[in-house]
Amino acid sequence: MRFLRIGPAGAERPVAVDRTGAAYGLRPLTEDITAEFLAAEPAPRTAAAIAAGRLPRIELAGERIGAPLARAASIICIGMNYAAHAAESGAAPPPEPVVFFKKPNTMVGPNDPIELPPGSLHLDWEVELAVVIGRPARGLDPAADPLELVAGYALTNDLSERELQLDRSGGQWSKGKCAPGFAPLGPWIATPDEFADVQRIALRSWVNDEPRQDSTTADMVFPVAEILRDLLACMPLEPGDVILTGTPEGVALSGRFPYLRAGDRVRMSADGLGEIEQLVVAR
Amino acid sequence: MRFLRIGPAGAERPVAVDRTGAAYGLRPLTEDITAEFLAAEPAPRTAAAIAAGRLPRIELAGERIGAPLARAASIICIGMNYAAHAAESGAAPPPEPVVFFKKPNTMVGPNDPIELPPGSLHLDWEVELAVVIGRPARGLDPAADPLELVAGYALTNDLSERELQLDRSGGQWSKGKCAPGFAPLGPWIATPDEFADVQRIALRSWVNDEPRQDSTTADMVFPVAEILRDLLACMPLEPGDVILTGTPEGVALSGRFPYLRAGDRVRMSADGLGEIEQLVVAR
Repeated sequence: MRFLRIGPAGAERPVAVDRTGAAYGLRPLTEDITAEFLAAEPAPRTAAAIAAGRLPRIELAGERIGAPLARAASIICIGMNYAAHAAESGAAPPPEPVVFFKKPNTMVGPNDPIELPPGSLHLDWEVELAVVIGRPARGLDPAADPLELVAGYALTNDLSERELQLDRSGGQWSKGKCAPGFAPLGPWIATPDEFADVQRIALRSWVNDEPRQDSTTADMVFPVAEILRDLLACMPLEPGDVILTGTPEGVALSGRFPYLRAGDRVRMSADGLGEIEQLVVAR
Repeated sequence: MRFLRIGPAGAERPVAVDRTGAAYGLRPLTEDITAEFLAAEPAPRTAAAIAAGRLPRIELAGERIGAPLARAASIICIGMNYAAHAAESGAAPPPEPVVFFKKPNTMVGPNDPIELPPGSLHLDWEVELAVVIGRPARGLDPAADPLELVAGYALTNDLSERELQLDRSGGQWSKGKCAPGFAPLGPWIATPDEFADVQRIALRSWVNDEPRQDSTTADMVFPVAEILRDLLACMPLEPGDVILTGTPEGVALSGRFPYLRAGDRVRMSADGLGEIEQLVVAR
């Protein structure tokens, strides 16, 4: 099942899209796509409601798409999780996952314009697989499969202002990761049953239709299950947590491509997670 | 005005304490102390309700005290914000505020026991002034006083597991800052009118009644208004954001004191912000 939210920013309505591509309004089941909704078996409940004829068919054409989750509990980012990206950033692959945060209020619709922070000369893109948590968990149960915690997956651009992140941060990256709109997410959250193998998802990005990143989640240093195990050893997870799992090589920080400027268009795609595109605009 | 929450964890009730020390149940005004409540002139509204006899007098004795805010939007931490603490950590005072995050679900009652993370040998205390944001703000208005954004102040222990923070983190500190219960906050949020000068608040900590930290907010490298200006240049703030403004010298990381072990009692105080105490327990 795919869950998304459509309508004007701040007034989005929840929608489900089934395997046939048919779209249904979700309001008979939930007011919004919240952490609570994702925590309560949303895919089978939605499938049952569709089968029972309880959800109205709707059309998506012409609608703005919002972030597919009303509010993230936390946005947890994994740094340097692709060896080639670590190398282009001047670092070795880390021995354990590197963890930092984005502010939850950075999350916006997947195609919303990106406002260039005032004076920014180092705005960079990062295509990433986002993991949305659907169950609370605390500590490690060695017998448990950490992927059982996952409500679904989405595509995101982990936007980064490199001067703030690296040169004016005292080494703590979050400062360059939290400008308004710096986490476009969507178009939908796809539930785990839609993927044969989450470690075989192709991720690609383009700027003005020129290719930038072209990799797959098979190249992660720490696959999703290992990321979850590592996080659980450090922090309690909860429904609505969104984990950005790191970006592959091909960003501007490498020196091979120019940073983003007003007028640039960033496009990204991932297998089973759709395509997103943002126009960079002056604030 | 002071706002606090009393009762069992997860079922706290909101309370106001006025300048006479009288305590009142806040339920006629708000179901809980939420970001929305703090965003809507809570001190004058509460004072008016007390004056009108709308709030019931209550007794606090014997009640557990919860965190004074139902949920933090974000917990934003400022690192190395006291020169002597930077020195004891082996660093120079930073040229700009250093920013990282704690997970919002680390916030607990100010006197709740601290669970030692399994295997932890490097659990450290940090007494800090917490700033609670009451208004949304985005970008810098040079004419505006950033302190106008503040709903109130509180006392906190920014607990840190130094091995996770420094040795197993790839240099990003959040990993050692997010274990369950790592942000005891309270006992109350005091509104800004209770302080003649927020940069003259004494902060102290003890372990097993032996003094550890003894400083004042006058020693901050970046005072609260400068922290807010710097954050607004990087990220949008919103009601319910909690900013931990850094700790003064006197933590275990200095090498002068042992790290915390099960059975230790950590006590902290701040002028106008009360006293808090946590017992360290094995998980």
